[in-house]
This record gives sequence, C-alpha cells and structure tokens, in this order.
Amino acid sequence: MPRYKLTVEYVGTRYSGWQAQRNARTVAGELLEAVKVATGGEALELMGSGRTDAGVHAVAQVAHLDLSGTHDPRDLRHALNDALPADIHVLGIARVDHRFHARHGATARQYLYQVSRRRTAFAKPFVWWVKDPLDTDRMAIAARLFEGRHDYRSFCDRDPALGSTLVHVERCRSDLNGPLLLIRVRASHFLWRQVRRMVGVLVEVGRGTFTPEDVDAFLRSDSREPARFTAPPSGLFLERVDYEGEASDPDAPVRPAVSVRTPR
Amino acid sequence: MPRYKLTVEYVGTRYSGWQAQRNARTVAGELLEAVKVATGGEALELMGSGRTDAGVHAVAQVAHLDLSGTHDPRDLRHALNDALPADIHVLGIARVDHRFHARHGATARQYLYQVSRRRTAFAKPFVWWVKDPLDTDRMAIAARLFEGRHDYRSFCDRDPALGSTLVHVERCRSDLNGPLLLIRVRASHFLWRQVRRMVGVLVEVGRGTFTPEDVDAFLRSDSREPARFTAPPSGLFLERVDYEGEASDPDAPVRPAVSVRTPR
Repeated sequence: MPRYKLTVEYVGTRYSGWQAQRNARTVAGELLEAVKVATGGEALELMGSGRTDAGVHAVAQVAHLDLSGTHDPRDLRHALNDALPADIHVLGIARVDHRFHARHGATARQYLYQVSRRRTAFAKPFVWWVKDPLDTDRMAIAARLFEGRHDYRSFCDRDPALGSTLVHVERCRSDLNGPLLLIRVRASHFLWRQVRRMVGVLVEVGRGTFTPEDVDAFLRSDSREPARFTAPPSGLFLERVDYEGEASDPDAPVRPAVSVRTPR
Repeated sequence: MPRYKLTVEYVGTRYSGWQAQRNARTVAGELLEAVKVATGGEALELMGSGRTDAGVHAVAQVAHLDLSGTHDPRDLRHALNDALPADIHVLGIARVDHRFHARHGATARQYLYQVSRRRTAFAKPFVWWVKDPLDTDRMAIAARLFEGRHDYRSFCDRDPALGSTLVHVERCRSDLNGPLLLIRVRASHFLWRQVRRMVGVLVEVGRGTFTPEDVDAFLRSDSREPARFTAPPSGLFLERVDYEGEASDPDAPVRPAVSVRTPR
C-alpha cells in the first residue's frame, strides 16, 4: 500500500477547516473527492499534520495519503490539482515510507499571523485589520515571554483532563513589515485555539489593555481572560511543518504569506 | 460646490465594473451609497478617470466627487471607508479646484496585468493562470512592438465610427517576477478591451500561436484575430492615473499588485 506525502496550500475562507466532516465543506473533504476523480478509487487514509480551524489558511500543510494503487507522484499531483477547486493547491507529492506519519512524525509546527494596521481592499481575507494604534515595541517584548516551556491552559479550549497543557514554544516573535505586523509562533505542537489567543492577548498588549507582566501572569495561572481575546481566523496561516531528518531554519526572515502593494 | 479628488483601490471580482448601473453592483454605485451614509446627502457628481470592466481591479483609480457641503478630507475618508464594503477602500482624498476633471484631465493611464505561470491557491482572483509553457523572451520582444503611435482598431470593441482608434502607447513591457509575468502598459488613453486583447495576443506569442511579426501585422491592418484572444479580467489592475503637473515615473520597477509567497 503506497503512502504519499502531500504538501498543500489553501485559502481557508470558504472551508469549515481541514478535517473531513459530513455536511460541511472541508479541505480534506475536497482532497478526498479529488482523489476519486484523479485515481478512480477511494483514498485508504488521509491524515494532516493537524487540524486547522474554519477560515484558517495554510501555506504548507503536510498530509499523508494512502492509495491502493501506485502512481507517479508528478502525474498524481497534476491530476489532483486539475480536480481541486482553485483555492486548494497541492504544492508537492513524494512517495514516503509507510512509517512516515504526518501527525505523529511532525517535530515542529510553525504558524504565521498577519495583523494589518491599514485598511486595504485586497488583503481583507488574509489579515486581521486592527484599527486602533498599537504599541508594536511592547508587543515584540510580550511575544518573547511566550518562548520556553509553559502551561498554556489559560490559552486553550481543551478540557485539561484530556492531556497535558504544557507546551514548549520554540519561538514567538512579532515583527513589523510595512503596514503588516507578522507574528510567527513555532512549537512541537499546539493546543486548540492557542495561537489565536496568544495573538489576541498580544494585540491587547499593543492596545494597552494588558501589560507584558499580565502575559507572564496568564502563563503562571489559570485565567479566563485570554479566551475573551481570540484573534479571528482570517490572519492565521499554517506556515510549515517539520519532520525528523529535515533541515529547518527557524531563523529565516519572516515574510508575509500574501502581500499587497502600497500605492505610491 | 466643493470638489474632491479620490484615490480608490478595489477588488473587482464581485462588481460589474466601475460605472454605476441600475440593478448591478458596481464600484461607483457602492461609493455613492457610502457618500449617503457618510454625509447624509447625495453626491452631485462622481466621475472616474475611466471605466473598468467587470472583474477588473484597481490599485489606484482616481475619481472626482462633488458634494454640496464642505468636509474635512481626512474625516470624509474615514467616514467613507467605514461605510464601504471591505473590498473597496479610499486611499486618499484631497480638495481640488473645480477645474480638476478625473477623466478629461488625466494625462496618462497605466495598467498592470498579472499572468501566473504557477497554479496557486491564493492568487487565483488576481492573475490569469496560464498552464502552457510560455516563451517569455519572445513575449518581451513582442510587447515592445506595441510602443509608439498605432491604429488599435484590431484590438478594440468600439465602433470605429465613434472616434479615432489611434493610440500612443508610451510603454508596454513584459517582465518576469518569480512565477509571475508582469505586463505593464501605459498610454494617454485606451480603447475598450484594448489592454486585455494586447495581453491575450502576447500570451499567444508566448505559446507559439503568433510571432512578433504577427503582432506587427495586427497593428497595420484590420484583423479579427486579436478579438479571439481577450485575456480574462482577473489579472488586470488599473495601476495609476497621472494628471498635469504631477511627477510621474514610468521607469519605476514593475512590482506585483498582490503577491503570494512561494513556500520553501
């Protein structure tokens, strides 16, 4: 049974997230349909590195796909893209060992969040437009407080009884890029809604509602505050997923996923 | 009666073009509605530098707007943007002399056309994705043939009886920018569908259907061929409009209007 590693980009706007569901349009659901059209058969398994929520985008989601027959990866990629809607695109397909597992084998996930400080006609589906002035220096300071091993129970929607809420955040930086504020977060794994709540709290630091000290306190307590400030999904991109043995460069410069030119 | 100069960006996808029409959603129609909400009164006149077709975008359309009352340009801009849908955005407003005329006073119009040589989930509404291999060197050579004063009757949809089809194209260049091919055309004015037919013919040169010599022949004859190859509106952006006394830099580097990052 051949296993394939898929790298997929998608605009999440029209979808109820990654995970296939009955009676809802999802990214995995569209991929499973495309497999039928492209191969004439059913996928035996399709597993993403993780679920993205409704409206969240991916620059490079990774999934593994099991098919009953053997296909040339290049031909399979073209056939899938021909069958997929325009807002989902398979960037690459490779044959992998059956031990490759897109979810359990991932060593790091990286998300990019785009906050726009400028209203723009073009970027709306890909940013969170924040109208209020933001103290971006304070946000940069607060972002770094998330780095390290912390208990993120105040930032997640998961029943803590289901498992540990300890997460080692390798990197959390907030950088200016023209009218955009790019927040990049990298960890071995994330809890449900964690990134959007981290961003929501950072924006409140920028607005002056919270101080960097408050962020520190949220990481040391069980607070209901961060849940009140969940950033909208439109600005969030799953940017990369790393696996054992792959080169990774978390220090690469942070670039926007979708950027819009500012006129003269 | 105060006159204002508006600079407006919009995503054309959802609109039946610029020009206000009954029973159709248009960019000017949305602006007129926003004026009512923002000022409580009717606009006395709203005139764009030119009409853009259904689905065509603008990075910087220029219009003049006459209002009965006097408004602070900054407050007016904020009030209009608050009332406009997310895909239309007023970039700037300035008080101008009543002799300023957005259409008759324009000395040059510049369009950018984005051809993508790569399928992408994010850029679909902002490019024409051409799957076939393109000889971009030949396209660059053919593009320059459009420069100068030529009879564009083979490239327009207008009844030639209505006026001259002579157009002085100041600049027409086709440049590579990663997976995008950026075609920039600049002239004092354009005929209806002229740019999309120029681009359609250039892409056929890239595909090998036409030669640069054919382009030359179309400019010297009355041919029905270019009309068969009208490029889709999605890739077209009204990029700038120049007026007497304004600095202009047609040699500025050609940058994409909306660009999408290519993953590692």
